[in-house]
Amino acid sequence: MSEFDQWLSLPVKAIDERSKKAAEQRQQQLTKPAGSLGQLETVAIQLAAMQATETPSVNKVHISVFAADHGIVEEGISAFPQAVTAEMIRNFANGGAAISVLAKELNASLDVINMGTITPLEQLSAVSDQRIAAGTANFVHQAAMSLAQCQQAILAGRNNVEQVYQADIELFIAGEMGIGNTTSATAIAAALLDLDAKVLTGPGTGLNTKGITHKAFIIEQALNKHRADLSSPLTILHTLGGFEIAALVGCYLACGKQGLPVIIDGFISSVAALMAETLCPGTKHWFLYSHNSAEPGHHHVLSALKATTLLDLGMRLGEASGAASVLPLIRLSCALHNQMATFEQAEVSEKS
Amino acid sequence: MSEFDQWLSLPVKAIDERSKKAAEQRQQQLTKPAGSLGQLETVAIQLAAMQATETPSVNKVHISVFAADHGIVEEGISAFPQAVTAEMIRNFANGGAAISVLAKELNASLDVINMGTITPLEQLSAVSDQRIAAGTANFVHQAAMSLAQCQQAILAGRNNVEQVYQADIELFIAGEMGIGNTTSATAIAAALLDLDAKVLTGPGTGLNTKGITHKAFIIEQALNKHRADLSSPLTILHTLGGFEIAALVGCYLACGKQGLPVIIDGFISSVAALMAETLCPGTKHWFLYSHNSAEPGHHHVLSALKATTLLDLGMRLGEASGAASVLPLIRLSCALHNQMATFEQAEVSEKS
Repeated sequence: MSEFDQWLSLPVKAIDERSKKAAEQRQQQLTKPAGSLGQLETVAIQLAAMQATETPSVNKVHISVFAADHGIVEEGISAFPQAVTAEMIRNFANGGAAISVLAKELNASLDVINMGTITPLEQLSAVSDQRIAAGTANFVHQAAMSLAQCQQAILAGRNNVEQVYQADIELFIAGEMGIGNTTSATAIAAALLDLDAKVLTGPGTGLNTKGITHKAFIIEQALNKHRADLSSPLTILHTLGGFEIAALVGCYLACGKQGLPVIIDGFISSVAALMAETLCPGTKHWFLYSHNSAEPGHHHVLSALKATTLLDLGMRLGEASGAASVLPLIRLSCALHNQMATFEQAEVSEKS
Repeated sequence: MSEFDQWLSLPVKAIDERSKKAAEQRQQQLTKPAGSLGQLETVAIQLAAMQATETPSVNKVHISVFAADHGIVEEGISAFPQAVTAEMIRNFANGGAAISVLAKELNASLDVINMGTITPLEQLSAVSDQRIAAGTANFVHQAAMSLAQCQQAILAGRNNVEQVYQADIELFIAGEMGIGNTTSATAIAAALLDLDAKVLTGPGTGLNTKGITHKAFIIEQALNKHRADLSSPLTILHTLGGFEIAALVGCYLACGKQGLPVIIDGFISSVAALMAETLCPGTKHWFLYSHNSAEPGHHHVLSALKATTLLDLGMRLGEASGAASVLPLIRLSCALHNQMATFEQAEVSEKS
C-alpha cells in the first residue's frame, strides 16, 4: 500500500461519550433555565466530547489558508481576473486581507500556503510555497489534475495539520482562496450529491444572472464529459478539484484521524468537508460548522452533512472568514460552560 | 413641565449621514468582493453613522442589568419561584451568572441595579440598590405601579446611561432579570401591537403547554380589566410594566437623546425598545439588534421595529446575554472595516 493509502485507511478518532455526558449534566446544573443558552450550550458539549474533558477550551487556535489557480477560469466563469489569486496571497502576507485582520484580532496563528498559482510568486516570508503546478488544467477538456497531484495536495493539508497538532493547537480552521474555485467546488458537489449544476451554481465573487447561467452550463458540460470517470470520491476530486480544495480535504481528514476539532467555513470548505466525510465516514464528528454562506449551493452541502451552523450573516468571502468570525462565540460558549456557577454553588432555587 | 416631561420632550440625536456615506464608500474599496462580508459590513456602517466617524470603535462597552420582582407571580405564571430574583442578583454580584462571565470575558464594565425586589437585600458592594417598591402590584387586579413610580424607574435608567456616557463608553448594553417579567412584557407587547396575548405568550423560563395557556389567559384577563386605561404608551407601561422594564425604557430613551449606540437583547428588552421608540420616534436609530430569542413573541416585536438581528442561537435567558454574545462580532466588524487594505493599497485588481 502507498503511504497515501495507508494513511487514508487509518481510523477516525472516536469522540469521548463520557465527557459529553458529563458536560451535558454540567449544563443542567448551571444557574439558568435548562437550554436557555441555546446553541452556546450545545457547542460547549460538542467540544467537551472532542477534547475528552468536562471543561473544553479553545484559546490556542490556528488558521491555514490554501490558495491556488484554476484552469477553468479560461471559460469566463469568474467576476474577478485570475491575477487576483496571487495578488490576494500578497495581501494575506501583508496583513490587509479580511482573514489577516481576523487572525490578528482573534489572537490566532495564520499560515498562508501557495498550492499552485499560475505563475511563481516572489519569496514571501509569510507564505509557504508548495506549488504543485501552474494552476489546474481546464476541467472542461481534461482532468483538473492527476491522481498523484491530488494525493500530493491532500498530503500537504495533512502535513499542515500534523505540524499544528504538535504545537498544542486546540482548534483548527482552514480556508481557501482561488479565482474560479466556486466553479470547481460546485462541480464536485454536483457529482457527490448527484444534483443538477443549475441547482447549486451561484455568483461566487459576484457574477450577474447571465454569468451564473453560463457558469452552470460550463459545469454541466464538464460533468457530461467526465461522467464515466466520476466513479469514486477521489476521481471526482482529481477530475474537478482545485489544489487548495484537495488540501482542505487533507486537513479535514487529518483532523478526524488526529482528533482535532475543526471549524468548517463556507461553501467551498463545506464541499471539501463533504468529500472528507465521504472518503472516511465519521470524520464529520470533528467538525463545527460556522455559517450559512450566501452562495446558494451551500445549504445542499450542509444538509448532506446534517450540519447545524451558528451564523447566518450573508457572508460569502471564503478565506476562512466565516469560520474565524464564529470563533468568539465558541470561546464564549466555553467560558460560560466552565465558569458559570451551579444552582448549588450560588444557592439559587431550581424550577418549581 | 415636570423634569420628566421636559426630558422626554428632548429630541433624539440625529445619526451622521455623511459618516455613513464615507463608511459605505470605504466598504466598497476594501479587498473583497463588494458585500461579501454581509452583515459584518452593514453593522460597521451603522456604527460609523452613530459615532459620526468613518472608523467606528466599540472597545469601551458597559452592561447594566436591572432586576425587580413582579406581583403577577401570584397567578402562577412562572416556572421558577419568586425567590430566584434576589438569588440571581447575588449570583450577578458574585460573578456566577451568565452575564457576569460574559462581561468579564468581553472586558465590559457591569452594573447590577436592584429596582425593586420583594424583600430588601443585604448590602452588596456590586449591586446598586434603587428599590422603588417591594415588587410591582399584581396587574390582574390593579395597575402594576403608579405613574410616578414608572417615571422614577425610567429616570433610573436614564441616570445610569448618563453616568456611563460621562465615562466615555462607546457602546451600551442593557439587560433585565425578574421572575414573572415575560408575563409583563407580553402584556405590554399585546397592548402596543394590538395583538392577542395567545399569539405572543411563550414559556419564559420554562412553562409547559398547560402553563403557557394559563399565562396567556391571565394576560388576557388583565388586558380586559385595564382596556379603557391603556390609551397611551406611558399608561400601558405603568399599568402592565415592571420596574426593570421601565428602567430599560429609560436607558433606551437616554441612548437616543445622548446619541449612544445600544445593543438590544431579547424579548423583554425588545418590548422596552419598542416602548421607547413609541414614546420618542427615531430612538431606534441608535439600536443594534442582537438576536432572535426562542420566546415566540419576539419576532412580532422585532418586526414592529423593522429590526435585523445578527444571531439566531435559540437563546432565551435575558440578563443581556444575547446582546453581550453578539459584541465580539460587532468588534470584528469594526476591525475589518478599519484595518483591511483597499484595492489600491494592496495593488489587487478589481472586478473585471
